[in-house]
This record gives sequence, C-alpha cells and structure tokens, in this order.
Amino acid sequence: MPDCVFCKLVSGEFPSYKLAETAHSFAFLDINTLSQGHCLVIPKKHHSQIYEVSKDELQDLAAVLHSLCGKIRQTFNPAGLNILQNNGRIAHQLVEHVHFHLIPKYETGQGLGIEWPAKQGAKEELQAVQGKLKLA
Amino acid sequence: MPDCVFCKLVSGEFPSYKLAETAHSFAFLDINTLSQGHCLVIPKKHHSQIYEVSKDELQDLAAVLHSLCGKIRQTFNPAGLNILQNNGRIAHQLVEHVHFHLIPKYETGQGLGIEWPAKQGAKEELQAVQGKLKLA
Repeated sequence: MPDCVFCKLVSGEFPSYKLAETAHSFAFLDINTLSQGHCLVIPKKHHSQIYEVSKDELQDLAAVLHSLCGKIRQTFNPAGLNILQNNGRIAHQLVEHVHFHLIPKYETGQGLGIEWPAKQGAKEELQAVQGKLKLA
Repeated sequence: MPDCVFCKLVSGEFPSYKLAETAHSFAFLDINTLSQGHCLVIPKKHHSQIYEVSKDELQDLAAVLHSLCGKIRQTFNPAGLNILQNNGRIAHQLVEHVHFHLIPKYETGQGLGIEWPAKQGAKEELQAVQGKLKLA
C-alpha cells in the first residue's frame, strides 16, 4: 500500500527497530513507546483491519507473538503484559495496517491504561447474542 | 484447576453462553459485558498467563479468534473492535486463566476505554532494547 508507514517498514524503505520476520509476519519496536519493550507484530501484507487477515496469516502471527512474549519475560520480567489489537479509529487504531501491541507493565500508572465500564448482562439479551454469534 | 471459574465453564460444571469449542480452545460471552457481543476465547487447559500457553494452543486459539471476529462483524458490524489479553493483576487481569477479550465498540464512551501515555523513545534506548529482544 503506497502510503502505509508499516508497509514501508516491512519493505525496508523506512528503517525500523526490527525484532523478527517470518513468512507472513514482521515484529519491531514501537518508537512511540508506552514502556520498555513495547513492540508490534504485524502481517507483512497490507490489511487495514483484522477481518481481512487470513487464518493462516493470523496463526503465523500468533507464533511470533508467542516467541516475543517469552523473550520479553525472559529479558525484562515485567509485573504485567498487555496484548492489544485495535480496529477502527473509534477503537484507538491510529495506523491503518493491522498490528498487535505487546505492552509490558512495570508499575501502576505506566504502560497501557485501561477503563472498564462493564455491566452485568441481562439473561435474555445474552441468550439472544449467543444465538447470533454461535459458531457452527 | 479446582478453584478456577473458567475451568468450570470448560468442563460444564458451571453454565456458560458458549459460542465455540475446538481441540484446545473455548469461546463464550462475558457476562460482565462492556458492549453487545463482548466475548472471551480461552485455552481449555488451565494456564494462568500467556507465557505458559504452548505455540500450538495459541495457534488453535488464533483460529477461533479469526472466526469470531468475522462472525461479530457479519452480525453486528460494530464501528470498532478491540482484542485484549491481560497478564498480571497490575495489567487488569482479574481471572487467572488466560483469556482474550473481543470487545466490539459501537460509540465513543462505551466499550473498552484506553489511555495511552506514550513517549517518543530515545534512539540509544530503543537500540539497546532491540538488541535484547531480537529473535534469532
């Protein structure tokens, strides 16, 4: 995709703090960093949202996530770690190329901030949603 | 794990709004819901954090995530969608059995709230972290 920053990191047109590369995935440090070790894993092919990624690509990406989580723990042993993937500007997606954030957390008030305005779901509503989302 | 609520959902000892089950994964609605369609995908085997999950289990889980993202979009077409996996109480993990949240977002101020206190990383610091986290 000509105007995509992440595509330029994958191709090498832009430099990156590269951590790993596989058949379908590419991992690098986020320079706009939330904490030490904050990195991104992306599909090499341009996809703007998770819905466009194939199952094979997502499984390849999962293997890289798996390795990097282990490496982060072994290297920095953070108190916590968040994995986050955002789709849509409203959901805090800023670069329109699918990316998974790995965000270590060392202390409260640092790293990813999470707000959780949850409500207990009503039984009838949950049953209706279950009926719609159940996979075959 | 005897005292784990999610293990009891997998075994059927506790009822759940089940959405899918595969060899290694189980998906169900979160009853403490952030938005319509908020659901969880977990490994069937008890693992408290992502580091304990095997690559095969995570790839199986990725396939279920892939299917459910598609189903959520097809059913509810939300404006946004966040995928979130938290490790450690400090990182907002409340149930100590690995789980990936799928959280649709329909409007601002609803669903997952995200705070992002990022800073531009210094080049020397990023290079040092890259050297430590680079995969072989």
